Amino acid sequence: MVKTGIVGLGYWGPNLLRNIYANRRNGGLFICDSNTARLNKMAQHYPDIQSTGKYQDLIDSNDLNAIVIATDVSSHFPLAKQALLAGKHVFVEKPFAASVEEAEELVDLGRKNGLVTMVGHTFMFSPPVIKTKEIIDSGELGDIHFITSSRVNLGLHQKDVSVIWDLAPHDFSMLFYWLNEEPTEVNAFGHAYVLDGIPDVAFIDLAFPSGSIANVQVSWLSPSKLRRTVIVGSRKMLVYDDTEPLEKIKIYDKGVEVIEPESFGEYQLSYRTGDIVSPKLDTGEPLASEMEEFLRCIETGTTPKSSGTEGLAVVRALEMADDSLRKALVGKE
Amino acid sequence: MVKTGIVGLGYWGPNLLRNIYANRRNGGLFICDSNTARLNKMAQHYPDIQSTGKYQDLIDSNDLNAIVIATDVSSHFPLAKQALLAGKHVFVEKPFAASVEEAEELVDLGRKNGLVTMVGHTFMFSPPVIKTKEIIDSGELGDIHFITSSRVNLGLHQKDVSVIWDLAPHDFSMLFYWLNEEPTEVNAFGHAYVLDGIPDVAFIDLAFPSGSIANVQVSWLSPSKLRRTVIVGSRKMLVYDDTEPLEKIKIYDKGVEVIEPESFGEYQLSYRTGDIVSPKLDTGEPLASEMEEFLRCIETGTTPKSSGTEGLAVVRALEMADDSLRKALVGKE
Amino acid sequence: MVKTGIVGLGYWGPNLLRNIYANRRNGGLFICDSNTARLNKMAQHYPDIQSTGKYQDLIDSNDLNAIVIATDVSSHFPLAKQALLAGKHVFVEKPFAASVEEAEELVDLGRKNGLVTMVGHTFMFSPPVIKTKEIIDSGELGDIHFITSSRVNLGLHQKDVSVIWDLAPHDFSMLFYWLNEEPTEVNAFGHAYVLDGIPDVAFIDLAFPSGSIANVQVSWLSPSKLRRTVIVGSRKMLVYDDTEPLEKIKIYDKGVEVIEPESFGEYQLSYRTGDIVSPKLDTGEPLASEMEEFLRCIETGTTPKSSGTEGLAVVRALEMADDSLRKALVGKE
Amino acid sequence: MVKTGIVGLGYWGPNLLRNIYANRRNGGLFICDSNTARLNKMAQHYPDIQSTGKYQDLIDSNDLNAIVIATDVSSHFPLAKQALLAGKHVFVEKPFAASVEEAEELVDLGRKNGLVTMVGHTFMFSPPVIKTKEIIDSGELGDIHFITSSRVNLGLHQKDVSVIWDLAPHDFSMLFYWLNEEPTEVNAFGHAYVLDGIPDVAFIDLAFPSGSIANVQVSWLSPSKLRRTVIVGSRKMLVYDDTEPLEKIKIYDKGVEVIEPESFGEYQLSYRTGDIVSPKLDTGEPLASEMEEFLRCIETGTTPKSSGTEGLAVVRALEMADDSLRKALVGKE
Repeated sequence: MVKTGIVGLGYWGPNLLRNIYANRRNGGLFICDSNTARLNKMAQHYPDIQSTGKYQDLIDSNDLNAIVIATDVSSHFPLAKQALLAGKHVFVEKPFAASVEEAEELVDLGRKNGLVTMVGHTFMFSPPVIKTKEIIDSGELGDIHFITSSRVNLGLHQKDVSVIWDLAPHDFSMLFYWLNEEPTEVNAFGHAYVLDGIPDVAFIDLAFPSGSIANVQVSWLSPSKLRRTVIVGSRKMLVYDDTEPLEKIKIYDKGVEVIEPESFGEYQLSYRTGDIVSPKLDTGEPLASEMEEFLRCIETGTTPKSSGTEGLAVVRALEMADDSLRKALVGKE
Repeated sequence: MVKTGIVGLGYWGPNLLRNIYANRRNGGLFICDSNTARLNKMAQHYPDIQSTGKYQDLIDSNDLNAIVIATDVSSHFPLAKQALLAGKHVFVEKPFAASVEEAEELVDLGRKNGLVTMVGHTFMFSPPVIKTKEIIDSGELGDIHFITSSRVNLGLHQKDVSVIWDLAPHDFSMLFYWLNEEPTEVNAFGHAYVLDGIPDVAFIDLAFPSGSIANVQVSWLSPSKLRRTVIVGSRKMLVYDDTEPLEKIKIYDKGVEVIEPESFGEYQLSYRTGDIVSPKLDTGEPLASEMEEFLRCIETGTTPKSSGTEGLAVVRALEMADDSLRKALVGKE
Repeated sequence: MVKTGIVGLGYWGPNLLRNIYANRRNGGLFICDSNTARLNKMAQHYPDIQSTGKYQDLIDSNDLNAIVIATDVSSHFPLAKQALLAGKHVFVEKPFAASVEEAEELVDLGRKNGLVTMVGHTFMFSPPVIKTKEIIDSGELGDIHFITSSRVNLGLHQKDVSVIWDLAPHDFSMLFYWLNEEPTEVNAFGHAYVLDGIPDVAFIDLAFPSGSIANVQVSWLSPSKLRRTVIVGSRKMLVYDDTEPLEKIKIYDKGVEVIEPESFGEYQLSYRTGDIVSPKLDTGEPLASEMEEFLRCIETGTTPKSSGTEGLAVVRALEMADDSLRKALVGKE
Repeated sequence: MVKTGIVGLGYWGPNLLRNIYANRRNGGLFICDSNTARLNKMAQHYPDIQSTGKYQDLIDSNDLNAIVIATDVSSHFPLAKQALLAGKHVFVEKPFAASVEEAEELVDLGRKNGLVTMVGHTFMFSPPVIKTKEIIDSGELGDIHFITSSRVNLGLHQKDVSVIWDLAPHDFSMLFYWLNEEPTEVNAFGHAYVLDGIPDVAFIDLAFPSGSIANVQVSWLSPSKLRRTVIVGSRKMLVYDDTEPLEKIKIYDKGVEVIEPESFGEYQLSYRTGDIVSPKLDTGEPLASEMEEFLRCIETGTTPKSSGTEGLAVVRALEMADDSLRKALVGKE
């Protein structure tokens, strides 16, 4: 059993709270938010848990094993560092930290003190993403040539971070998980339409040591949510669309015949050869699996699949992408 | 009535032939291919038209008004130049020429001699592309922020040109037509998987004077055809998917409300606000409209909407993309 | 404020409980189930509510205003009758009762005693169904010619009722709500594949006084859920597919032009004329609206839109369908 | 080589003509239509074939082996009978004849005179329909429980036949082909909205000796084309949608787990278990295969898969459906 503190009850924190609360390893909860209204709302909803407005109370709580941090990116580092120094395991929402330097220090601190560091790369616990990993690892797709990923929707503009820091962690964490490697090159291109200096659309190119390449599109500007990840291998292609209710994953077999079109209309229709398969997916809420992983790793002393190291890798790529984008934007002025 | 010569009866030429043959302005046809089998097959199919194995016969034919060139890219320039010098209007398949220098010379020759130069940007004559142009011009989408375009399928690898020269002319011609401007910046990233030195996947970023940006993905490596063009404006979004049988175009109205998710499942579902409209499209084969435009412009002395100037603009962008891709690939070695 | 008892905590009862619990008009809850395990689970989850294993405790509870009945169909009548005789408003899950006779007696009892009787026709509170009602009433579709509805999935076979009594209440309640009339004729055809004497697939024809007709397909035998309701009017057609994540409703404008096909392929593509519009839908859980309606009607003394009268109409049609199906099956032996 | 006469060059005849013309077994064509404009148009398009305005010329033509009849239903019988009496093989467009009596006489005549009789059940030559047949025959779906089929679109109202005679031949021919049996019971329900006495929407129930049942919906009243055939077997389900560009056939594996919903939203999502597979389909125009079958059977003396016997079976079911519908409509007045 693990007793967990949670700091930050804004947008995402209550979801983490709900899932820890329902977890069989939950050995008590202590929630914290400086916003009294939010704090009271949650305290009322869960009358049997502790609450406080001061983070120091969590740090000082001797029976608290772990702290979950769901605050603004800028506070991830100081809060997590304090927790680790106080001997508490930490779970930090994505992105893991605001810079590579910060992320490295947290990973180091965790390692030195024998504490779990984990990052909230929730998609790594999502059934279609896990299934995709299994399919890639099985070799069914062949060598992975390239991956394209589109993540556009109507987002809330953030005042301090670009769309890259907000949305790309999802895609980066999936890419690195699937390919089992970090990129050697990350270049971004984009634009800031709504708020000066805060890019709200970006196209990011990545190159990996294995030879695979990727293109990631992120934006807050689209009125409707579009998701589509395409993984093209030497043998088959996999398309993952999270907005599909039933067939989130489709695998396209490679065919060969290409019919010469006799009219423009036929040209449109002629392509397609092998079978298309949409595999059965597990059900289950990713957040529940994620919290289970955190608590389980604390109890068993194992390393989470989205550990601080994975958090650091994503932050490193975000920094590369953001630097490249800033240079491109400056160059234009 | 226009008498037309057609050179090149491989993949695409017979389609152009069929559409000119059926056009009401057709005043006779003279076809040419050095491959005797191909030539005879077409001659048999259309017993009432002239045929020859020598291009010079077309040039020397006094009553021939125009020449349609559907040969390899490398021969576009010499064949078109010869035709223009002989006083014949020319239609050249896309891409218009193999370099900016060549394209410029052809445009100049046409202008000086008062001859029509036209390029086979067929999508500019396709009902969904025309409808999209009308919708953009009407202001319904607001300012165009960004456009992403994906064109991947199982392509036949070409021995002398990259996937950019093969597929990107479609996307570039649509982009420049819709936005009514040429890009100031074109950068590409990609890889050559199958044939050394012939990139078969590329991601291309474009920046336009108006502030719009675009990202174009092209590849020959995908087993199934995927098409999706997303146009995000300040007011609405338009999605154009050429593989859809019925609803090729959808317009998404912008909404505002974003519901805070209480579970991961709801988060997936919550986004979407305004109406979605799929407008009625004209029917009609793009190639028929394209050939009609060519013959009509010759008869009336007007400039086609896909004139040599549009061909040149696309070639200029192709050259920029290809140069940038080559640099990126060299840099990696 | 209304104090409500809930009897039956199996499959559906807990959902009703959760929604009443969260309702602003909720003035207390008293739950009942003879299954102690179920009862205790709910009692633990909601420590602030009363619970009992005996229905009589609900009847005897003087401060209880209303009873929600979510038990087996066969017990709907005796439980509801007892409640009404004790002066309590009743909400009964669908189908309202096991026979027309029973349903009529409940409606009468409610009317005589000035009590609300309501039936759980949940789809009448579902945003796409309400939107469809608005569109029909606006006249946008013209006169309603016919409606087809398909509701097939992998169902749990029931031991005492046919698939008609299990699934058709959904479709019937929607049909009568949309058309604002009851059918004069109901005929069914079907088969019992898995359990002798319990039809698990049925096709039902309905004729309405206005001249509209309908065809309803219900089955428990399909491995995947299929839903599609098509409403064809004299002016437009509406298609409602509840399995679609985003575009649950589409309205097809009527066109006229039909192109003569020149090939089988073109024939497939030629049809389609007007615009297709997918209107914005409200969000919100139907069950929450349904429970709000029940409590509101009790407080204000108004009649719910899915009152006992609507419950009776559906039971009448179910009886007609079931009788007709039994005759057809008997006739075949 | 077969020399073929074609009578009737209206809507469908020219397609048959084109496919016979291109067939390698074609040994000459002789076309016939009383409408001079139509006849001349075709004669001009195919300058190397014979044409006439009088059917008797076809009958009298000694070197003519076969006659293809693409005229109005009412003339199928007299024209086909005359042809068979003159020793010519016949292909008759669907429906094979206007009554069972007529159809029987044609089948008999063909049999007695050793001549091929074939009916234009084109869908039996369509790749998705053939694939479906193979899948059913392989036992992959298990025992076929029921089939539903929807065929609605904006049709041209016919003055002399109901929508059943116009559209149901497609569905009936597919059903009988797939199930390899004829129905013992056929009942229809419908309505005539536009023209008095000419039903333009019908719902048809069919029962087969094996225990399978079917429900067929046909209508001319829908503004947009909808097609969906669902085949539910004891093991798997197959859905065939002819309007889908790529995945015309999908096979749904049977699953078992059904999750108890905790909210209405989850209820919507919970169903679905096994894999979904969309098999590769052959390409090729059904009409070309159909004409190949006709000419091949004449040359080899074999029986076509859509022989007169299949034509008769469909006519028998059409008559049963139409009789039943007429009784139902009369009963209502």
